[in-house]
Amino acid sequence: MAKPYVRLDRDNVAVLLVDHQTGLLSLVRDFDPDKFKNNVLALGDLAQYFGLPTILTTSFEDGPNGPLVPELKAQFPDAAFIPRPGQINAWDNEDFVAAVKATGKKQLLIAGVVTEVCVAFPALSALAVGYDVFVVTDASGTFNEVTRHSAWNRMTEAGAQLMTWFGVACELHRDWRNDVEGLGTLFSNHIPDYRNLMNSYAAVSSR
Amino acid sequence: MAKPYVRLDRDNVAVLLVDHQTGLLSLVRDFDPDKFKNNVLALGDLAQYFGLPTILTTSFEDGPNGPLVPELKAQFPDAAFIPRPGQINAWDNEDFVAAVKATGKKQLLIAGVVTEVCVAFPALSALAVGYDVFVVTDASGTFNEVTRHSAWNRMTEAGAQLMTWFGVACELHRDWRNDVEGLGTLFSNHIPDYRNLMNSYAAVSSR
Amino acid sequence: MAKPYVRLDRDNVAVLLVDHQTGLLSLVRDFDPDKFKNNVLALGDLAQYFGLPTILTTSFEDGPNGPLVPELKAQFPDAAFIPRPGQINAWDNEDFVAAVKATGKKQLLIAGVVTEVCVAFPALSALAVGYDVFVVTDASGTFNEVTRHSAWNRMTEAGAQLMTWFGVACELHRDWRNDVEGLGTLFSNHIPDYRNLMNSYAAVSSR
Amino acid sequence: MAKPYVRLDRDNVAVLLVDHQTGLLSLVRDFDPDKFKNNVLALGDLAQYFGLPTILTTSFEDGPNGPLVPELKAQFPDAAFIPRPGQINAWDNEDFVAAVKATGKKQLLIAGVVTEVCVAFPALSALAVGYDVFVVTDASGTFNEVTRHSAWNRMTEAGAQLMTWFGVACELHRDWRNDVEGLGTLFSNHIPDYRNLMNSYAAVSSR
Amino acid sequence: MAKPYVRLDRDNVAVLLVDHQTGLLSLVRDFDPDKFKNNVLALGDLAQYFGLPTILTTSFEDGPNGPLVPELKAQFPDAAFIPRPGQINAWDNEDFVAAVKATGKKQLLIAGVVTEVCVAFPALSALAVGYDVFVVTDASGTFNEVTRHSAWNRMTEAGAQLMTWFGVACELHRDWRNDVEGLGTLFSNHIPDYRNLMNSYAAVSSR
Amino acid sequence: MAKPYVRLDRDNVAVLLVDHQTGLLSLVRDFDPDKFKNNVLALGDLAQYFGLPTILTTSFEDGPNGPLVPELKAQFPDAAFIPRPGQINAWDNEDFVAAVKATGKKQLLIAGVVTEVCVAFPALSALAVGYDVFVVTDASGTFNEVTRHSAWNRMTEAGAQLMTWFGVACELHRDWRNDVEGLGTLFSNHIPDYRNLMNSYAAVSSR
Amino acid sequence: MAKPYVRLDRDNVAVLLVDHQTGLLSLVRDFDPDKFKNNVLALGDLAQYFGLPTILTTSFEDGPNGPLVPELKAQFPDAAFIPRPGQINAWDNEDFVAAVKATGKKQLLIAGVVTEVCVAFPALSALAVGYDVFVVTDASGTFNEVTRHSAWNRMTEAGAQLMTWFGVACELHRDWRNDVEGLGTLFSNHIPDYRNLMNSYAAVSSR
Amino acid sequence: MAKPYVRLDRDNVAVLLVDHQTGLLSLVRDFDPDKFKNNVLALGDLAQYFGLPTILTTSFEDGPNGPLVPELKAQFPDAAFIPRPGQINAWDNEDFVAAVKATGKKQLLIAGVVTEVCVAFPALSALAVGYDVFVVTDASGTFNEVTRHSAWNRMTEAGAQLMTWFGVACELHRDWRNDVEGLGTLFSNHIPDYRNLMNSYAAVSSR
Repeated sequence: MAKPYVRLDRDNVAVLLVDHQTGLLSLVRDFDPDKFKNNVLALGDLAQYFGLPTILTTSFEDGPNGPLVPELKAQFPDAAFIPRPGQINAWDNEDFVAAVKATGKKQLLIAGVVTEVCVAFPALSALAVGYDVFVVTDASGTFNEVTRHSAWNRMTEAGAQLMTWFGVACELHRDWRNDVEGLGTLFSNHIPDYRNLMNSYAAVSSR
Repeated sequence: MAKPYVRLDRDNVAVLLVDHQTGLLSLVRDFDPDKFKNNVLALGDLAQYFGLPTILTTSFEDGPNGPLVPELKAQFPDAAFIPRPGQINAWDNEDFVAAVKATGKKQLLIAGVVTEVCVAFPALSALAVGYDVFVVTDASGTFNEVTRHSAWNRMTEAGAQLMTWFGVACELHRDWRNDVEGLGTLFSNHIPDYRNLMNSYAAVSSR
Repeated sequence: MAKPYVRLDRDNVAVLLVDHQTGLLSLVRDFDPDKFKNNVLALGDLAQYFGLPTILTTSFEDGPNGPLVPELKAQFPDAAFIPRPGQINAWDNEDFVAAVKATGKKQLLIAGVVTEVCVAFPALSALAVGYDVFVVTDASGTFNEVTRHSAWNRMTEAGAQLMTWFGVACELHRDWRNDVEGLGTLFSNHIPDYRNLMNSYAAVSSR
Repeated sequence: MAKPYVRLDRDNVAVLLVDHQTGLLSLVRDFDPDKFKNNVLALGDLAQYFGLPTILTTSFEDGPNGPLVPELKAQFPDAAFIPRPGQINAWDNEDFVAAVKATGKKQLLIAGVVTEVCVAFPALSALAVGYDVFVVTDASGTFNEVTRHSAWNRMTEAGAQLMTWFGVACELHRDWRNDVEGLGTLFSNHIPDYRNLMNSYAAVSSR
Repeated sequence: MAKPYVRLDRDNVAVLLVDHQTGLLSLVRDFDPDKFKNNVLALGDLAQYFGLPTILTTSFEDGPNGPLVPELKAQFPDAAFIPRPGQINAWDNEDFVAAVKATGKKQLLIAGVVTEVCVAFPALSALAVGYDVFVVTDASGTFNEVTRHSAWNRMTEAGAQLMTWFGVACELHRDWRNDVEGLGTLFSNHIPDYRNLMNSYAAVSSR
Repeated sequence: MAKPYVRLDRDNVAVLLVDHQTGLLSLVRDFDPDKFKNNVLALGDLAQYFGLPTILTTSFEDGPNGPLVPELKAQFPDAAFIPRPGQINAWDNEDFVAAVKATGKKQLLIAGVVTEVCVAFPALSALAVGYDVFVVTDASGTFNEVTRHSAWNRMTEAGAQLMTWFGVACELHRDWRNDVEGLGTLFSNHIPDYRNLMNSYAAVSSR
Repeated sequence: MAKPYVRLDRDNVAVLLVDHQTGLLSLVRDFDPDKFKNNVLALGDLAQYFGLPTILTTSFEDGPNGPLVPELKAQFPDAAFIPRPGQINAWDNEDFVAAVKATGKKQLLIAGVVTEVCVAFPALSALAVGYDVFVVTDASGTFNEVTRHSAWNRMTEAGAQLMTWFGVACELHRDWRNDVEGLGTLFSNHIPDYRNLMNSYAAVSSR
Repeated sequence: MAKPYVRLDRDNVAVLLVDHQTGLLSLVRDFDPDKFKNNVLALGDLAQYFGLPTILTTSFEDGPNGPLVPELKAQFPDAAFIPRPGQINAWDNEDFVAAVKATGKKQLLIAGVVTEVCVAFPALSALAVGYDVFVVTDASGTFNEVTRHSAWNRMTEAGAQLMTWFGVACELHRDWRNDVEGLGTLFSNHIPDYRNLMNSYAAVSSR
């Protein structure tokens, strides 16, 4: 039986950023570090651009896992921030679930480190209680391709949809005319090839 | 539950070519450029060879995305051509949907740039309203393998079938005897190994 | 809904070898040629070893596609051999379907060149009429990984099971005690690492 | 229909280690040997750490397949150990099935060599009789990526869940506070990057 | 001791195309077929564009190696064409050496199939008698990367310079102002990304 | 004969940035775009940080090649900027050579797009007249690995040394004590893993 | 200074096969096993075909390294066979050096397992005393690409030439007319693509 | 001119381990972490086994770079340990050079993190003053393959020899009979495939 097309609706989306911590990031080896940093910050930027309620959570900030990456912390000064005292699955933390419920949204975008644990566990838990779950695959990192594909498989079979930050931005925006400049800036800041297109175009057009 | 075998039927197929624009093509990095160009033109050639109604659409032709690649434009001078004023999902454009409906076909072959947006969004929309959707994977390009596989996964789960241009040509043609020379020419023009086989064969046979 | 475990039963299996022709093999680029040759011959050897009814078919033997590889022809002198006059999908050939029916078997092992056409089309057709279809993935070759994965996806969604020749041999044999030497010889001839293990073992044991 | 979230429960889990034998390990080429050795021993360590009932089995220990790797044998001196006299599918061995039943557990973690046979066959058999099966993909090795993905596909379609040893450990542990040091030691011993994080942290903290 | 910079001089260059035959091309597996075909034809086009004396040679045209690829034959109707009766090293053929000498050029561009034989042997022979040899690496194909790198190493150590067709064209042309359109057309025909740049540019400029 | 160790000396180094133009960058496919952008900007930052005389040059800015990337233009407002009217080898442009001479430096760091032309040609020319040439390999991009390695080979054989931006920065700086914070900031801005180390360290240290 | 072209001369070549033992072969992971087995046997076949004096040697046959692979032993029943009692570098064994000298040849083809030890050590020793050394790279295996390239680099710098079995055969044979059928059989037995060409050719020609 | 064969002599070798620090190791991405950890510890073990004088050095231990990995510190309690206060090139530190001189050895084995800086700089400096330098490539890590190959190239051109830990151990040991068990233990501890061979052998032999 095919999954129906659950389309992202900017009025019904919340973003969960799970354990993007300075120590844990050294475990991520299924992406080049330059690309992964860019993808995570792009997701942060789009959450901010679309004004999506965003929840940040960390695991053991005070230990080797390290603090939340400062850029994200700076970007969401007023967001719910749930430093978990020990629960590995963020969904086992009552404050976290309460924060999700408080958004009143039904569609959850989840990204985190590492994919098969910090992303997969809350994704599976959220699916089990009826949320629509969209995993942002390119802002979620893990040890290698075997762990990644095992995680994708488990989440997909449970009903999650796999998306990437660019697809998310496009599905939320719907129509360029809603704000050409805003979306263009987002892409220019995070897609070098797009930035080049824009700069080439601007050079010729301005003549 | 297994999907039933929906077999391509040349009397019931329309082709949707979405956003193969000269600027956007620089974003495609999951294929070598020589191969991708060949695959897109092969799909154009087969659409023409089988006389399939073909719909071309672009996004923001006048901006950095650039115009439709001239070869495709030249190949389908009489095709429906829908330059979208802003809708990212082509299916959100009424003229586009009308053009699809006007073909009277139920099976849609979709290819475009980039896969997770320009292909996936109309594919999901078309599936939702009952079309049989076949994604031509090797004529659809995107940023990298993570975005590709995320897009394939989302479309497959929603009921799309993944095919490639060679498979499409073979399933449409059914029997070499329908036109040996025509199909052979299509393959010779787009599969160098096949061309070599034919040239080797011709050399020996003609002696 | 999970697929039930349909286990290969040597009394209920037929093997379909589709279009392993000397010309078409030059199209196969998702396997190294040494490995692919070995896999195809291993499948031939196991069909013979287990006494499975085997059907050979080719497409346009007299043209550039070239003849059936001589090793397979020699290995199955009495097998049904259906040179198709033009049908691309072997299942569209009545003689081929009749030959399959004549085996009286319900489980079909299919391998061929190229995967998305010569394997996928008869696999989908056979599934549609109720056969249990097992694709021998490593004895089936195609242009590249995009065509391979598109074909695997389409066949899997339709109900096919993906296996490899080694798995097939093991599932058919069930128990080493049925014939240690026979199975060992099959593995020694087609798995260099296994051959090395046996030779090392024999050297020490014989002292 | 999405699979429900069956969550690992340390009171309901048994571990099946199938055919990790010194000879057979030379067949494993889809992992680097250093990494694979580490993954298998990590799974052994976690089974021991969580006190999970563990069943070891081998195929033809006295022949070229070689003995069980000594580290595993040493680690589970009191575990059920079933050297199979010939059955390829461990589930065809009555003692093995009895040992599984004797654990009284419903959730089975399975790993072994090679994936498409020694893991897939008992996984499919166990699913068929109602167990929840979790394949530990990174402690299961095989010839190459084609055999791996064919095996993953077959098992997934039949209802198995794909996990990796790190995910298993995290899902079983649930909360770091249950034993910070124990889990930390497990990770430090088997994840070099984590060990480095801990050592860096300790160095600064102790000043 | 560093090699001095021997710069290509269009008045002193001859091109040797060795054994680009329809059969032998099926041996080439270190390049994707679409890309390799493009590279070879690009080299042919540049030889023609710069009016470089070009020598074509083949090995056993009448046997399985097959005829020279027809496109090259058509492109150089008046070029020296030396079908060798048996010599594997083209430099062992007196007519071939005479043809090279007859050009009066000192700088030789060599490309062919397969790299370690048809290219390396005449390259080494030509170096030994004092020619400056430039191997066009991307128009020379072979079995795999081990054979390629072994061949590159042997030729480089003997004094050959490794270049690619694009570098050759640029070093011969020296200055765009010599013929902007001609060079631009060459690049547009053989570099899809460059063609896209030109088409995008033309679209904006023409407004 | 081994090359002597010519060590970078910040008082004797000039930087040549050749053709990093918005159009030409779409040709670069031997690096992921995120990484390549980062590498080029890192080289710009280090040139600025060490106060190295820097020369910028472009080829046909007004055509499809596009303008210099704006970030570099902004970073070096007072640098020599030589838009070449047509010369492909920047060293064929008298103004460029004059600008190099005017720096009075003997050690040249060269980076550009594409490696085998815009980098290799001036590198070979500069070597021929006695400069010490250091190619910054990771800030120089090209079509693919075959063109890259051919270019590296040709330049190395002629006496160039291959370095990367990180090695250049370290060899110029010599001793962290010269300015810990400055070098640390450079690395933090362009090496995500280093940034993480610093942030983790800062978090613990500040407690 | 460029190396002169030392061309293989069948009257002046000896072959050294070092430590192709059934146990040691399990260490080889820079080649697929099917391909490596084929390459080693191809080298054996060509040595036999050209009647080259061949010396076989092993290290610790009676221990875990295992015996010489039986195929080679069978192929050279009368060859010098030097089971070394302990020397790791075969050149440290007086009998081995004596056997090499006894051939009276100056050009040595060396292949073995593992490349950086069993091949590199005798290669370096032979070079040091004036032999011309040709490493058969594709019949020499090792742990991974880092060890391979380190070994190639060390041997090349010391004066060895890198060749592959196919290049060796071609350089020894010089001219197809010396024996078309013999060389063709060698290639047909070890190059599946060549075999296919021959079979296709034969099929058409015989009509 | 070929480099002469400088053979490692255990009476004339010192080992330099440069900056294997817990923080810096997170920068290493040209090796899988499990494999790199194994390689570094293998080098430590062989230095200890052969009783080679070993010098350890670190850069900024108290900052983000982190302390020397504890295993190495523990393994060489009495070795010279030079924590550098700021010099990036260890050879710029007088104590380090003095420690090297104090060993009285002429052959230096160098490994470290990252290859193009911590290894290449002292390697080039040591070569410049007449040492024989052997880079242990697989115990030296860096950001990616571009930085690795640039570093290898620069060091090789300056006269360094590239080796790996296994080759080093074999060249130092010369003859198994010097201590079969000791060398065997070293290999068994760091080469899983070798350990398996030994365990298989022991199992059969002990019967």
